[in-house]
Amino acid sequence: MNQKRVAIIGLGLMGGSLGLAIKKASNDYYIIGFDHNKTHQKEALEYGLVDECSDDNERITQCDIIFLAIPVDAIIQTVNAFGSVAPHTTIIDLGSTKHKISTSIKASLRTHFVAAHPMAGTEKCGPSAAFDTLYNDKVLVLCDLDKSGEHQVQVAREIFTLINMKIVEMDSHHHDRRAAYISHMPHALSYALANTVLNQEDPKSILTLAGGGFRDMSRIAKSSPTMWEDIFRQNKENVLSSIQCFNKELHKCEALIQEEDWDGLNSWMTKANALHQIL
Amino acid sequence: MNQKRVAIIGLGLMGGSLGLAIKKASNDYYIIGFDHNKTHQKEALEYGLVDECSDDNERITQCDIIFLAIPVDAIIQTVNAFGSVAPHTTIIDLGSTKHKISTSIKASLRTHFVAAHPMAGTEKCGPSAAFDTLYNDKVLVLCDLDKSGEHQVQVAREIFTLINMKIVEMDSHHHDRRAAYISHMPHALSYALANTVLNQEDPKSILTLAGGGFRDMSRIAKSSPTMWEDIFRQNKENVLSSIQCFNKELHKCEALIQEEDWDGLNSWMTKANALHQIL
Repeated sequence: MNQKRVAIIGLGLMGGSLGLAIKKASNDYYIIGFDHNKTHQKEALEYGLVDECSDDNERITQCDIIFLAIPVDAIIQTVNAFGSVAPHTTIIDLGSTKHKISTSIKASLRTHFVAAHPMAGTEKCGPSAAFDTLYNDKVLVLCDLDKSGEHQVQVAREIFTLINMKIVEMDSHHHDRRAAYISHMPHALSYALANTVLNQEDPKSILTLAGGGFRDMSRIAKSSPTMWEDIFRQNKENVLSSIQCFNKELHKCEALIQEEDWDGLNSWMTKANALHQIL
Repeated sequence: MNQKRVAIIGLGLMGGSLGLAIKKASNDYYIIGFDHNKTHQKEALEYGLVDECSDDNERITQCDIIFLAIPVDAIIQTVNAFGSVAPHTTIIDLGSTKHKISTSIKASLRTHFVAAHPMAGTEKCGPSAAFDTLYNDKVLVLCDLDKSGEHQVQVAREIFTLINMKIVEMDSHHHDRRAAYISHMPHALSYALANTVLNQEDPKSILTLAGGGFRDMSRIAKSSPTMWEDIFRQNKENVLSSIQCFNKELHKCEALIQEEDWDGLNSWMTKANALHQIL
């Protein structure tokens, strides 16, 4: 049997779950993992996330598909450090920002490259966090497809369809603005909420009272600072403007409470309720 | 068999789930429900949340226990409208604020009254939202117990222990300050986040990208404005000061991103990660 060769660079939650999902969906792929953390490579083999691990750059760059499941700054560095790849190779990144990545890949590899962002994740990280349904039925955004080769676009569509993702397309500018509102700014809020409580005099007494609402809102404050530092750096302007929009809304709420405009506050909350008729 | 009589006023998520939990845990209680919404009374009977519904004030005020599972302003109005209750009656409220309630119950009923706040709930409301494990293994706060009769405190402890709640005690001042940080302010954030996205030019395109993080953070923005208007009114000062603390943290984050102090941002996020070693 002539299996297609898939390299997954980065064997944490995203890369590990991708290995599991592909192996679960099909026997047509042979998966080679790489992680600069050797303990992660060992764990990835133990958990069956990949078929083998390899540090051989030559072998990786000859694969049919190379996935990059690493922080967004590292994606650019890693791809641009590839000397060349096989003519049929498709390189796909899974980063949370898209514009900087899409415009920073070197010209000689740009048609090989497909910029993707799966709207899936948890606050956990490392190979032990991987699970085979992470991507199932989730949205996948593909960006700037006019810059990718026809073959590469087809390969990307096939593999994401195989693991049951819902593919949407948009340019990387739109993606980054929308991702700021739906993901990056909410992460900033969650980190700020966690720090607000931790800065109080007796945080443990406060946390004793934590119910589902607080747990949900502070969950993503557990996310990796290394990963999020890169995202905030690459999407700085959109993140700042989305935080400013949020500030305006929260100030509206504060003013309504301060002025005891309870009807106004009720209307403001009722408007927010509408979110869930859309979502 | 001599069953104890329990009245539940308010047959939504909280009251309905309480009826189910008590009936599941013991046959020693006969449960009489009341809701000013007659459709809710009908539904509560259909779903088996209570044994009967009654509009008879006399009958309700003679019960062994009267639970108030209604918005916090209505709790005060309803209890103070009771002419009198039986000598052995225990009145327990389930409101999210405690100081205003604890200090507003009329003197003739104050020893009958026990101020309680179960740290449990969902964003849903109405009898159809009720489920029998809502309170299971959750924290219950009892406040200002020195103002309640000895018999009433014992009755309250027994019934909340019966449905497997973890009881903690504190004075209502401390409760309201802590509840502002762990519950009330996070609700304000969630409503503000929902409105921020809804105010954008194309909210549906943004919401297409919603993953678990956004869904979790906006979930409680679906909560009832009527219920939350009352809570924000009763806990105004604590809510405002907790929002101000949050603003300082978020401004810190904004400044770090604006100034491109990535090390500082990384440290700030790492600090937030510590929350989950406590929680």
